[in-house]
Amino acid sequence: MELDRLVQAIRDDNRAGATELTRRAADLMLREIGGDHLSPADFRKSLAALGKALMAAQPTMASIFNMVNSLLLSLKETELPPLKQISREVVADFLARLKSNSRALAHHAGAFIQEGYTVLTHSYSSSVAAALEVAHAEGKQFQLIVTESRPILEGRDLATRLTSKGLSVKLVADSTAFRYLPQAQVVFVGADSVASQGVINKVGTWGLALAAKELAIPFYVLATSEKVVPAEFPFALKEEPGNPKEVWDNPPAGLEVINLYYDLTPLKLVTAVVSEEGGRKPAEIIESAQGLAVSPDLI
Amino acid sequence: MELDRLVQAIRDDNRAGATELTRRAADLMLREIGGDHLSPADFRKSLAALGKALMAAQPTMASIFNMVNSLLLSLKETELPPLKQISREVVADFLARLKSNSRALAHHAGAFIQEGYTVLTHSYSSSVAAALEVAHAEGKQFQLIVTESRPILEGRDLATRLTSKGLSVKLVADSTAFRYLPQAQVVFVGADSVASQGVINKVGTWGLALAAKELAIPFYVLATSEKVVPAEFPFALKEEPGNPKEVWDNPPAGLEVINLYYDLTPLKLVTAVVSEEGGRKPAEIIESAQGLAVSPDLI
Repeated sequence: MELDRLVQAIRDDNRAGATELTRRAADLMLREIGGDHLSPADFRKSLAALGKALMAAQPTMASIFNMVNSLLLSLKETELPPLKQISREVVADFLARLKSNSRALAHHAGAFIQEGYTVLTHSYSSSVAAALEVAHAEGKQFQLIVTESRPILEGRDLATRLTSKGLSVKLVADSTAFRYLPQAQVVFVGADSVASQGVINKVGTWGLALAAKELAIPFYVLATSEKVVPAEFPFALKEEPGNPKEVWDNPPAGLEVINLYYDLTPLKLVTAVVSEEGGRKPAEIIESAQGLAVSPDLI
Repeated sequence: MELDRLVQAIRDDNRAGATELTRRAADLMLREIGGDHLSPADFRKSLAALGKALMAAQPTMASIFNMVNSLLLSLKETELPPLKQISREVVADFLARLKSNSRALAHHAGAFIQEGYTVLTHSYSSSVAAALEVAHAEGKQFQLIVTESRPILEGRDLATRLTSKGLSVKLVADSTAFRYLPQAQVVFVGADSVASQGVINKVGTWGLALAAKELAIPFYVLATSEKVVPAEFPFALKEEPGNPKEVWDNPPAGLEVINLYYDLTPLKLVTAVVSEEGGRKPAEIIESAQGLAVSPDLI
């Protein structure tokens, strides 16, 4: 089926950011909304099934979960036509908010950069890129250390994007980031999800957060509220290994190569989570996560 | 000059381990010892000059310093023929001790591995490889996590060596090592030098040591006494960046790529330094470093 194939494409994409994949997931939900359904119950069941498939395709991406969850929570009408109308609006609203919240986040986070700072970041986060571009556009002079981010080197993409916009960028191997930490005044990372257990982000984030704590360097996670996971939804770091050939395409026989993409950074290592509302202390995140509803269809 | 070229080759070699480079440096010292000299003073001056060039070629490698230092400290005879004879013996003794000490170290360190352990290691250390091989030869079953060690991926060489000897090895990207740390019972790393300020080793070691401390996982540095630096000799982590093309061979214009090989791990993060004498607490290392003499020719 066409939808299955498109869900699989979202599953296989380990390069695109959360915002892009959420947009693609929303497109698939809109397709399903536009499909044929026998009844409101059948409609809800179809949306829940696709939503769960999308969540399973990218189980660490809270914005996909939240898009699906907000859609299912909104299904209160009993007739199909208004149900479909409301569903379309909820998805469109979610995407619009994601976009405007991302813009607001970039401005809040950019304000954390001061003239002369060295900012260190890991991997590629479009939120981090936008924040740095805002600070640069405001005329602030600062240095940037970007990790290459093995195995698929998406840090090179970030470094290339920011260099082309005139920012002053140094690219280093992932391990070398630790050597540059003492020179940094601030660390910025993105997130796939923010939960009471911690922040799920590209593997390597936890080690850098730990080292930043040791050196008393502020460590900011840039994530709009669409990345925050309800406390009652179990969002553990369950993760199948990725393609080992991304790490080494021809290892000797008998050698096991393991490719993991994510890790979990405890909130105690995070100075603040910067969202569209500005910087919030981890305790506030935990509190806000407790108030979030979860659709019974997803439990 | 031929010698200059050979010193340069030692400088340019960022793949060979300390033991191999020390052996090559010793070969060059033996050549110089066999050369023509006008007087004992000229002999001493020539050895000191070559020794300093070798130390400058690999400024983090304590074993080269200690080989040169022990040679210069031994120059007490006043006639050239006995001076040369003693010099040859000192170099040969140093190499013989390095070899036998490495063997003893491997047995001591191997004893830190227990049945069923997962051992995590970073980069390629011949001391670590030998210790793991000893434990394996004793019939112990254990798992091994090896980092690929960007940029030049010498971790692949270690993983290949150990896999070919029948050990059970998982190779991971450097950042992913942090994900495997909670499963490890012990971390083994090598060292280029051990000083009162800390351990100089492949970049990335400090971050792993910090994380191991956080998780209360024993962190062992495997280094024979030839790696210990006298307290009065300033052995700071001064380091010129390596070839950036090892990190990225064709970065976009304007993007600076930085390649650093080493970092400094404070001794407070080290559970023990394992040498030919067995495991020693960091405090003992600091004490032993205070008793080491330095040739006036090197200060």
